[in-house]
Amino acid sequence: MKWPAGISSAGLHCGIKPDGLLDLGLLVSDAPAAWAGTFTRNAAAAAPVQWSRALTGKPVRAIVANSGNANACTGRHGEADVRAMAEAVSSTVGCSPEEVLVASTGPIGVPLPIDRVVQGIPAIQNGLSDDANSFSRSILTTDTCPKEAMASAGDATVCGVAKGAAMCAPNMATMLAFLATDASVDPAELQEILPEAVERSFNRISIDACESTNDSVFLLSSGTGPTVDATELAAAVNQVCASLAEQIVRDAEGASRVMRIVVEGAADEPAAAALGRGVADSVLWRCAVNGADPNWGRVLSALGSVDRDLELAQVSVSIGSELIFDQGEPTGSLAAAAKAMDTDDFSIVCTIGSGPGSAEILSTDISAEYVKLNAEGTS
Amino acid sequence: MKWPAGISSAGLHCGIKPDGLLDLGLLVSDAPAAWAGTFTRNAAAAAPVQWSRALTGKPVRAIVANSGNANACTGRHGEADVRAMAEAVSSTVGCSPEEVLVASTGPIGVPLPIDRVVQGIPAIQNGLSDDANSFSRSILTTDTCPKEAMASAGDATVCGVAKGAAMCAPNMATMLAFLATDASVDPAELQEILPEAVERSFNRISIDACESTNDSVFLLSSGTGPTVDATELAAAVNQVCASLAEQIVRDAEGASRVMRIVVEGAADEPAAAALGRGVADSVLWRCAVNGADPNWGRVLSALGSVDRDLELAQVSVSIGSELIFDQGEPTGSLAAAAKAMDTDDFSIVCTIGSGPGSAEILSTDISAEYVKLNAEGTS
Repeated sequence: MKWPAGISSAGLHCGIKPDGLLDLGLLVSDAPAAWAGTFTRNAAAAAPVQWSRALTGKPVRAIVANSGNANACTGRHGEADVRAMAEAVSSTVGCSPEEVLVASTGPIGVPLPIDRVVQGIPAIQNGLSDDANSFSRSILTTDTCPKEAMASAGDATVCGVAKGAAMCAPNMATMLAFLATDASVDPAELQEILPEAVERSFNRISIDACESTNDSVFLLSSGTGPTVDATELAAAVNQVCASLAEQIVRDAEGASRVMRIVVEGAADEPAAAALGRGVADSVLWRCAVNGADPNWGRVLSALGSVDRDLELAQVSVSIGSELIFDQGEPTGSLAAAAKAMDTDDFSIVCTIGSGPGSAEILSTDISAEYVKLNAEGTS
Repeated sequence: MKWPAGISSAGLHCGIKPDGLLDLGLLVSDAPAAWAGTFTRNAAAAAPVQWSRALTGKPVRAIVANSGNANACTGRHGEADVRAMAEAVSSTVGCSPEEVLVASTGPIGVPLPIDRVVQGIPAIQNGLSDDANSFSRSILTTDTCPKEAMASAGDATVCGVAKGAAMCAPNMATMLAFLATDASVDPAELQEILPEAVERSFNRISIDACESTNDSVFLLSSGTGPTVDATELAAAVNQVCASLAEQIVRDAEGASRVMRIVVEGAADEPAAAALGRGVADSVLWRCAVNGADPNWGRVLSALGSVDRDLELAQVSVSIGSELIFDQGEPTGSLAAAAKAMDTDDFSIVCTIGSGPGSAEILSTDISAEYVKLNAEGTS
């Protein structure tokens, strides 16, 4: 995938990962770029999240990202290391450190080998090109493949790359996404478009309900392209985020199938999304999904623990096309429901009333392999 | 264990469970008994929960309980079945159906074989005695052993039996507990004592964070014994509930170790309990516990997702006696922490500030076996 005009990137192995894979990425905008970001709300947010969040509202020239180390819960050293990364990029690119966003992903609580990172930064600049490939690979942890997506907004383009929210073995990983557009756009507009797209994409996937210390999504505008209608630009950003979010779920480690939890008839869209997340967060239901077991009681139990006012007599549930709970009464064929689940991508539709709110949450099963992977040692 | 004076019980196999194990229990009070109950807050609460909850405030003569079927999400048939159970007991014991509490545990959404249950009730009365053993076995599902506890309150006694909150294979099970005392006590006092004891015992254990449709705790007073100081009675009820709760955690299916999550320095006790539950609910941390992996970043990440105002610089974490995070800075030996975890019962202490609030949450690891058990088919 080619970045929009005015944006270039590169990735290399600087020595964080023991296996020689790419672990350091740099994305550069030729001109100062307007940007928007959304970040984890975790109070244990990593040092790079705190650094980048503090730059909100000012144009930037570059993003430096590393994988193999989250630089989270690393205390004063972690803060100094983020500044060192931004300073090294500023020297190389020719800008101020406060024009450099930073993102990290990997194990928590481990000191960053900052000397290797700082030494890698001048070298990485030689590789800068409009091809996103090496950058998109440099941010991966337990992902099995890079994730890229693009969409058109009039005569402009929106491109994005992401790494997975698997939060999997051997240590907690993190969801990161980097979007860029050449569209000329007001920074305030970017800051309106991005959170809404994130809410409807990355916030509608749930792998293990654990909230990371490092989650970050960035959207940069190089401003070298045409001015675009805001609605058109928002649609393109939504499309790229939705594609990347689905790629993340498909690549969730230790998962064998994608589950689409559709909630309909809720009071509003946020209420529908909350109910869907409740189903996605049920470990018991995700175990059942692993075995293609239509144990729908676990779904109703999850819905009833989210909405205390749920009325079972108004609730219906279908697995695939098989209606198995009809306005408060069990019905249908469990064998047919089991068959519908026994694929790599199935839907469960929960109608909980007659309200206008609906939402779809993407999740996966939980497997014995997931537990084994996440029980492996850090010490 | 012998019940207090005025209380008797029995259990038999009426034909719900396919394996011939006890599945129907009856507990009778010689005289109308004051009682208190706490119930699941799940909106998908089972038919027996709705029946028993509606009897709050009126004296009762008996409790009928079955295992092997939750009678939850069973629609109109389920409601009729609960009434049939209460009516059968009322004929046998000689009271009104509205003097009979009902509790069920087992798979959700399966019609109860009500004919077998109703036929079993007259037979069960012949077995009534002051020995709690057969009753305590009749309520078990995936538990490996019955759970009993008793404590003295002055010259009176408090006895209790429980079944596990494992919510495990092959279908969702449920936490049930039945306490009885001979102490003469005002019903309003019982209703004050029980919720507080439950809050500090059964509500401080977390096996898989899934909230059941059937959870119920009952406390009956036969009133045949002495009047007891309320504080003394409350202490005895607390002691019995705490013992039963710990027995439930120790017997959680698919778990290999008990984890005691101690939170100190919180604003108040509820805040401390909420933070502890957040740690207990982290699937990633429970995977790490399974492998005795001191991946403490997952603990901080869980704390930071519960309390958005957490200040890492005020947070310290010890695993066993090994301090591994000291006021915002990583420290200590991961090898020593791993050794401390590698037992069947270990503690993690999270100090999150200088407030007066503290709480202990009991939980377990999550194992590959747990997932396998819960992926097994219902259909």
